[in-house]
Amino acid sequence: MNYDDVMKLALERGFYFPSCEIYADAQAGFWEYGPSGVGLKNKFLELWRRELVRRDNMLEIDGSQIMSQSVFEASGHLTSFADPIIQCKNCKSTFRADKLIVESTKIEIPESADLTDFDKAISENNLKCPNCKGGFEATRKFNMMFKVGIGPDGEPAYLRPETCQSIFVDFPRLYKTMRGKLPFGISQVGKSFRNEISPRQSLLRLREFYQAEIEVFCNPNKLNDLEKFSEVQDTVIRFQLDKLKEMTCKEAVNSGTIPNKFVAYYLGILAEFYEKTGIDMSRSRFRKLGEKEKAFYAEVAFDFEVETTTGWLELVACNYRSDYDLGSHAKKSKEKFEVMDDDVKVLPHVFEISMGIDRSLYSILEHCLQNDKENDRIVLSLKPYLAPVQVGILSLVKKDGLKEKTDEIYQLIKRKYDSFLDHSGAIGRRYRRLDEVGTPFAITVDHQTLQDDTVTLRDRDSMEQNRIKISEIDSVLYKKTAFP
Amino acid sequence: MNYDDVMKLALERGFYFPSCEIYADAQAGFWEYGPSGVGLKNKFLELWRRELVRRDNMLEIDGSQIMSQSVFEASGHLTSFADPIIQCKNCKSTFRADKLIVESTKIEIPESADLTDFDKAISENNLKCPNCKGGFEATRKFNMMFKVGIGPDGEPAYLRPETCQSIFVDFPRLYKTMRGKLPFGISQVGKSFRNEISPRQSLLRLREFYQAEIEVFCNPNKLNDLEKFSEVQDTVIRFQLDKLKEMTCKEAVNSGTIPNKFVAYYLGILAEFYEKTGIDMSRSRFRKLGEKEKAFYAEVAFDFEVETTTGWLELVACNYRSDYDLGSHAKKSKEKFEVMDDDVKVLPHVFEISMGIDRSLYSILEHCLQNDKENDRIVLSLKPYLAPVQVGILSLVKKDGLKEKTDEIYQLIKRKYDSFLDHSGAIGRRYRRLDEVGTPFAITVDHQTLQDDTVTLRDRDSMEQNRIKISEIDSVLYKKTAFP
Repeated sequence: MNYDDVMKLALERGFYFPSCEIYADAQAGFWEYGPSGVGLKNKFLELWRRELVRRDNMLEIDGSQIMSQSVFEASGHLTSFADPIIQCKNCKSTFRADKLIVESTKIEIPESADLTDFDKAISENNLKCPNCKGGFEATRKFNMMFKVGIGPDGEPAYLRPETCQSIFVDFPRLYKTMRGKLPFGISQVGKSFRNEISPRQSLLRLREFYQAEIEVFCNPNKLNDLEKFSEVQDTVIRFQLDKLKEMTCKEAVNSGTIPNKFVAYYLGILAEFYEKTGIDMSRSRFRKLGEKEKAFYAEVAFDFEVETTTGWLELVACNYRSDYDLGSHAKKSKEKFEVMDDDVKVLPHVFEISMGIDRSLYSILEHCLQNDKENDRIVLSLKPYLAPVQVGILSLVKKDGLKEKTDEIYQLIKRKYDSFLDHSGAIGRRYRRLDEVGTPFAITVDHQTLQDDTVTLRDRDSMEQNRIKISEIDSVLYKKTAFP
Repeated sequence: MNYDDVMKLALERGFYFPSCEIYADAQAGFWEYGPSGVGLKNKFLELWRRELVRRDNMLEIDGSQIMSQSVFEASGHLTSFADPIIQCKNCKSTFRADKLIVESTKIEIPESADLTDFDKAISENNLKCPNCKGGFEATRKFNMMFKVGIGPDGEPAYLRPETCQSIFVDFPRLYKTMRGKLPFGISQVGKSFRNEISPRQSLLRLREFYQAEIEVFCNPNKLNDLEKFSEVQDTVIRFQLDKLKEMTCKEAVNSGTIPNKFVAYYLGILAEFYEKTGIDMSRSRFRKLGEKEKAFYAEVAFDFEVETTTGWLELVACNYRSDYDLGSHAKKSKEKFEVMDDDVKVLPHVFEISMGIDRSLYSILEHCLQNDKENDRIVLSLKPYLAPVQVGILSLVKKDGLKEKTDEIYQLIKRKYDSFLDHSGAIGRRYRRLDEVGTPFAITVDHQTLQDDTVTLRDRDSMEQNRIKISEIDSVLYKKTAFP
């Protein structure tokens, strides 16, 4: 199943849909999660907490989305987080200058080049607007941060373009009050905002999006001194090097593919996490970024990518950011960011696991959506612990007191499990609808229920039905929907 | 314990603290949740989902925070969501004109009055700046929405000042795709943004804050036709009328205190929810708002308020908004908002339960924080299901293999329970620290553990310790931390 199939599912079954769609001035790059999307997202985040945050004993914070100008002066975003753009004099369409030039001429001009370099390339190659053949205005820098004015005087502040800045800025307080000890992981889930020139493909390039970021603060002199590395040493990771290559974390360190045990440990637990999301890991890879591709602050960088029908998607950026962040904020703020580690003062380095939640959810949906032609159904084979609706509660027919009995069962479990009560329509069609939204189990009340207090429990994937006692429903569901 | 005690706890134990605090241009009204705050908030929201969203079979969505201008033209925010403000010519301090006038002269000028009315009152009463005795510039309107520019041309859009607008705008799609039937509840948790002139008191008046909003769409002709009302008819609610009065939901409807069963049902389940948060309900009340106090769209309005050391705090606004919202968006967008209800076309009315999450969390903290002088400790008596750290895992001493055994137990449970591993310091001091952050249980590994695989389980409130088997830890914690 491809992008369009997922989009159809998303729109029709409440996973996601465009924001403000009833209005003509709805802006591109803003999408809403419907009820199914919210359920999937919340459970995905619970898995993330279990497999990364709690597993590694990290902290989790939730910081403001609007942050002060100084933060982004220090981080470099105010000057560097800008694209060179050009606008058509005629039709006013706007393009990324570097992208238009490379697509038309194969000439690569780095984003950070002088604006005149772009203008020169455009005029020398006589580039025109792809839409209307018009000429271009001069290239200008367009900062991708959204600016807001605070208070009656409109003091400048910005919607954060990445969640991690809160973590860096809050580091001194958190390390002190939470009795920190290196390595020290701090995580955050939340919205970030980027004023993209060309948002597109629904969840894949948004202007307002969810990140789950982890920043692990470490002593750069101890990157191979990590006892817990043994937990992942045999975990297999797929690397995109010259070619695709599978190796264990231990082999990756020994071969120099990953520079140290510290980085290898976090790539390892990240791979173990994604394994549990239902993404087909045989269509995933860690790609080591070359010098030109890396963000300006990164010493070593791996992207975790997943193959979808739209191509390879970057779901996670793993960057060894060295002391760039804490150093910049220390310098700008005059606050102390050094900490003591075994009686030595050290400015911690940072390894980052920056996850795009929206893209991850898209990938899960695409990899789990199946056209089961044999049984004439569309099935979303979500892991039971990620399913937005965990169980359907159905009456075979409404009459003979079956509706009332079904309602009773629903009352019993609805607070604890995400359940969907459904009395109407042919039972087969109701099962199909549950299959399509990824509901792993359905409980059906039939005439036998009235006699012996049993119900049928239908399994989405096998389509098999077994009778269980009503008194067992809670314990059966608890086991079957439990996180691994 | 009072506001300052809670603030001390919040800052020192990672509940919340100011955003961007290392920088001089940190803006007032922005706060971060630390690890303890995130834990409390997530569990509070899970309780909200159980007791309101799932109990009532509502949907939950998660919409964009940046919304198009048309949305706020239709909602009235673009013209009406503004305060009259005055600025001192001399020291540039800014004040709400209406508040300054009423405080100095007792003259009440409605927010919506002509700007010249404020100027007139100021000059006639010779009002001066309270800070420097300077004169004032003319009164102007200050819209409390934060504006952002989208794309290279900076098309106007706004950070939503309330989450509910997404729910209204998305109603047609949700009703259709999710097989809606009146009454139809849609909920949302998320950030809202208001450019307050005077943010203050940490979580109590923020510029960026969390709301949990519920909009129940209903047929206005069926407000007393609600079978499930029987579930709450005997639930006791405290009303602030002429005086404080307790009555059941049934009595409230019969006496005309609440206009119908529909509104009474939702006030009832809201009261039952707060009962479970640990807020002292004897210090709570529903207050019926008078004509002047109500929001412009509300036909009937009740505030749920809680008494704290800062005074009575409004935690929830319950508004019967009639068809104001759907009607406005239908008119502006030309989209169809009517639905069929028993073969009759109806434009649904809306009853709203608009909850302030930050204030709710503050109130829980203040009501649960206790100075237990007898035992020389500060205890945060959070309900076990709301505690950020559910269990401490401690070794009595580090030596003799106790540390290793403790680590093993921690490994067993850390993914599932929010646990805190602690090896260092006197055991009494470690218990005190757990008490202060509200951890209901502590498991301690001692020498006996090595002999018979039992540990002590300490109860925060009674301070009693019982021995349990290691193999029982999961089932004991599961029961003790379960939601009610």
